[in-house]
Amino acid sequence: MMKDRGILIVVSGFSGSGKGTIMKELVKRYPDNYALSVSATTRNPREGEVDGREYFFRTKEEFEKMIAKDELIEYAKYVENYYGTPKEYVEKHLAEGKDVILEIEIQGALKVKKAFPDTLLLFVTPPDTKELKRRLVGRGTETMEVIESRMERAAEESQGMHQYDYLVINDRLDECVEEMHSIIRCEHRKCMRNLEFMEKIQKELKGEK
Amino acid sequence: MMKDRGILIVVSGFSGSGKGTIMKELVKRYPDNYALSVSATTRNPREGEVDGREYFFRTKEEFEKMIAKDELIEYAKYVENYYGTPKEYVEKHLAEGKDVILEIEIQGALKVKKAFPDTLLLFVTPPDTKELKRRLVGRGTETMEVIESRMERAAEESQGMHQYDYLVINDRLDECVEEMHSIIRCEHRKCMRNLEFMEKIQKELKGEK
Repeated sequence: MMKDRGILIVVSGFSGSGKGTIMKELVKRYPDNYALSVSATTRNPREGEVDGREYFFRTKEEFEKMIAKDELIEYAKYVENYYGTPKEYVEKHLAEGKDVILEIEIQGALKVKKAFPDTLLLFVTPPDTKELKRRLVGRGTETMEVIESRMERAAEESQGMHQYDYLVINDRLDECVEEMHSIIRCEHRKCMRNLEFMEKIQKELKGEK
Repeated sequence: MMKDRGILIVVSGFSGSGKGTIMKELVKRYPDNYALSVSATTRNPREGEVDGREYFFRTKEEFEKMIAKDELIEYAKYVENYYGTPKEYVEKHLAEGKDVILEIEIQGALKVKKAFPDTLLLFVTPPDTKELKRRLVGRGTETMEVIESRMERAAEESQGMHQYDYLVINDRLDECVEEMHSIIRCEHRKCMRNLEFMEKIQKELKGEK
């Protein structure tokens, strides 16, 4: 079979679901398969952060120019700062056959799916609600406000879960990484992602008659 | 996570794709996961065939009663004989959490999908058209008529490939069996197949606010 074009993958999940760790581990284990998308932001770099690695650091003017030129897959503004996903970086890696992973929250995920219907949406969740609550409450060092705000956010996000394609159950990290890898590998076998291969067979069999 | 209800799986593929061998090997390796559906037929048993194992052998009158009572998932008539899939056998295994596999051709597959939209459709194909033609031609012992009729049938079937969910590439049997298993395992992680789990999370998080 021909080398597939990469798949755009959006990963979301509850606070404490461990999605960040899973994605880093996935890319570490399979560097030839995956690229993590790098976001652009107008916030200032923190110590140790490198432009083009953690983020593409841009001025407000530069960022708004990117918006105007439709150079972002999606963007949002939090607390006076812009965050967004530059198209160019993603497109380059997809064309090379890499699956590109974006970690964004649910509103952003649905926007991306609408603009790019081929996007694969993965939702990371603990194995059951008891474990989910345990992780939301955390180690008991957080204030009640923090815990309540997490709970509210989780309740809100849970309303959108059914709009995702797959659930990735994070029980043990090691298994979870392999499960995510397996789901993505299988996605490459979807008929709708192999139109070229099928058309070739159809044409050649017609010619043979 | 709760024990999933089984998935109804239809496997089709070109003549010579090896789908029968793959399915038998799959069930042999993972007997707890899968059950092969047993068809009902009005044709006479051949030597060594056992009622309820190879087929459920039925009279024409019995079969037509099953049709009238809507006890078949699908059925078709070939050369004066009926062949069909009894609902009861399939439903029993699905309820036990087994994935039930049906091997039927494309018209039947699409009928099943229409009646049961949750059905997973898998299409087994050789890795490329050259290999496909090699297998259709066979070992050179077939008559030109046989080869031509296979070619025509394959050309016809290839027109419906894009209505399937996944392509299963049969290059090496061992890998192919594992790939099919992997595709089916991942299918269990589809959000739409885990509504109960998601509803439970949604409800419990709402209660927590």
